[in-house]
Amino acid sequence: MPEFLRLTSPGEALRRWFQAFPPAPSVGKERVPTESALGRVLAETVMAPHPLPSFPRANVDGYALRAEDTYGATASMPAYLRLIGEVPMGASADKPVGPGEALLVHTGGMIPEGATAVVMLEDTQPVQTSEVEVHRAAAPGQNVIRAGEDVEQGDALLEGGIRLRPQEIGGLLALGLTTVEVYARPRVAILSTGDEVVPPQAVPRPGQVRDINSYTLASLVTRAGGEPRLYGIIPDEKSTFQEAARRAYSENDMVVVTAGSSASARDMSAEVLAGLGEPGVLIHGLSIKPGKPTILGVAGKIPLVGLPGNPVSALVIAWLMIVPALARLGGAKPEAPAGLIRAKLAANVPSESGRDDYVPVRLEATPEGWSAEPVFGKSNLIFSLVRADGFVHVPADATGLSAGSLVDVQPF
Amino acid sequence: MPEFLRLTSPGEALRRWFQAFPPAPSVGKERVPTESALGRVLAETVMAPHPLPSFPRANVDGYALRAEDTYGATASMPAYLRLIGEVPMGASADKPVGPGEALLVHTGGMIPEGATAVVMLEDTQPVQTSEVEVHRAAAPGQNVIRAGEDVEQGDALLEGGIRLRPQEIGGLLALGLTTVEVYARPRVAILSTGDEVVPPQAVPRPGQVRDINSYTLASLVTRAGGEPRLYGIIPDEKSTFQEAARRAYSENDMVVVTAGSSASARDMSAEVLAGLGEPGVLIHGLSIKPGKPTILGVAGKIPLVGLPGNPVSALVIAWLMIVPALARLGGAKPEAPAGLIRAKLAANVPSESGRDDYVPVRLEATPEGWSAEPVFGKSNLIFSLVRADGFVHVPADATGLSAGSLVDVQPF
Repeated sequence: MPEFLRLTSPGEALRRWFQAFPPAPSVGKERVPTESALGRVLAETVMAPHPLPSFPRANVDGYALRAEDTYGATASMPAYLRLIGEVPMGASADKPVGPGEALLVHTGGMIPEGATAVVMLEDTQPVQTSEVEVHRAAAPGQNVIRAGEDVEQGDALLEGGIRLRPQEIGGLLALGLTTVEVYARPRVAILSTGDEVVPPQAVPRPGQVRDINSYTLASLVTRAGGEPRLYGIIPDEKSTFQEAARRAYSENDMVVVTAGSSASARDMSAEVLAGLGEPGVLIHGLSIKPGKPTILGVAGKIPLVGLPGNPVSALVIAWLMIVPALARLGGAKPEAPAGLIRAKLAANVPSESGRDDYVPVRLEATPEGWSAEPVFGKSNLIFSLVRADGFVHVPADATGLSAGSLVDVQPF
Repeated sequence: MPEFLRLTSPGEALRRWFQAFPPAPSVGKERVPTESALGRVLAETVMAPHPLPSFPRANVDGYALRAEDTYGATASMPAYLRLIGEVPMGASADKPVGPGEALLVHTGGMIPEGATAVVMLEDTQPVQTSEVEVHRAAAPGQNVIRAGEDVEQGDALLEGGIRLRPQEIGGLLALGLTTVEVYARPRVAILSTGDEVVPPQAVPRPGQVRDINSYTLASLVTRAGGEPRLYGIIPDEKSTFQEAARRAYSENDMVVVTAGSSASARDMSAEVLAGLGEPGVLIHGLSIKPGKPTILGVAGKIPLVGLPGNPVSALVIAWLMIVPALARLGGAKPEAPAGLIRAKLAANVPSESGRDDYVPVRLEATPEGWSAEPVFGKSNLIFSLVRADGFVHVPADATGLSAGSLVDVQPF
């Protein structure tokens, strides 16, 4: 498919691409210790093996008693209860509470049998070692966390597809679930092409540039929960490129190629990706800036991406396309949206209608809130992204944004 | 200092605490490979060792030429230039361009000496192998990225204190900077106390609960760029607790203790932390919900934290206090703000004036945008946080928020 015969909008491209490869296909599952599962995608439904809490607990420091023994009690007309002991922390409350009796309990301590409420220490007054005055009436259940109040036994607590946060780690361990089944991290092959590209440790001769894309993409893939695997710099020579691409295809769950920056190098990328298998190249050219010369395809179950060679375009498209594709491939369900930062645009941003623009902006604090300063620059200048804190999206139906308008900044 | 004599607002507490320990004090520096420095905090100022790009480059596929040779050119009155060759990708442009001459260049290719502009292929027509028609005039500099346009030699590119993102990794490698000096990850000791607490792999007897806090806190510390170090479960026995705390203090950059849930256990935490060194406990009790029984202190240069034992309070306070303290300790400068999600509150949220409330909410997509459903529940129910996507902050001067009002949700 020759380049740019028809440009596709980024949203439409993502939809068509996603229809062509299954979620979590070749990506396996693995069982890992729960305490090291932060950020991993859960691959099983977790049911509660027992209620939580597993016994009724005091929610305050105070006296466990029968609520009805306190009815009508006030500071001037206290109820008097027999103090029959204390429930030590970490121990079973062996002694039941009978009518007219009270047991000292600590926050988190077990509620003894017979007790239906806890009166806070502040609302009591010990009279002597064996008696306590209660100055306030307690309703049944007051200051008590009942067994199963957090979760009931058998509750479906966590569904497969969620990404584990600190609270899920804690919740699983509270139930004694010390291992958990997660999806393997999707393996992402990254191939950098271009006769002008040399490794970072090389001293470029005139006409040569150091490889940036392998490393910005690897960083982004890592951050998105994937496992980047670098296949190095491939010369613009078709059979060598084909061979490297085939190897990458056979060893990974996604193949990403960054093209050399010339049009012929981009065409070669499309040809090589198309040759990996059916259905091949699905999208060639996006109505977006930066990132127009983007290729999206699928071979078998493996998604393929051809990124523009220039580092800003490559990173923007990776962020818009590869990050969601990795989530799909890695079994993650759509998540809560990323947060946005409301800011006042500090300068006009021109844009062509019919094209989605992603404009890097730097955020500056002002007395009136955040100001978003567009970082202009040709799209191959990597330091334009270094100077930026996030993007402003100018939708395809807009012809630019005016200085002073409120925008939602997507942080990097 | 006895508990709750005076409650401090969270903002004031953070300010006073931060004044008492230096940024990046005992935390060392280390030199690491740039490609594995994602998320680390830069500990040096990076200057550009050479300009970027290091040679003038074509920004399009086209012909490098002298701009003045194209003045007045149109499709009907083209300029005719002598085609003297091609600049191959990755090679030096050896042949200078003289008056009336043009050289074929590819995007990213080197601009030859003498050329001042590039005319896009689309605006030209090859006449024969040695001549090209130019249909459009080019201004000097057009479609050329000049040497140093991204960065000039000696520019201060990155300042110490920034957290390295994919674009900084790429920018550093583009300049051949294959290693970089970063601050060591702050080591955070986590001690869990409470006679009722048992390890996650244990089967709790009645009255016992499994340790949650060690693992939620370790996860949060990891995510914030620190190195969590678990000191296990310490019984509520003062000399054992003191010994463990002293060892943790001598081996780490921050000490975090989660108290047993009873008031006496919390008092013991305060006493043990105060005994570690001067100035000792600075704050005991915050005007916040959840998290009122929080202790903040400093011993020498080491910040100390006593967290409430209940897992929700512990996690909320860790998120509000420990995460920023880790940034300070790890040498990170204040960053761009975290993004927020605007949502419509689905239910009334009551709150007491004079107290900062952090209410967990679940986000639901609706045709009108996001709806934030408060997740109510006693603050020791860890699964209330599992069910939530973020927090809504009710400031101290508000007495609650009404259903239907617009709120900014802070995602977890």
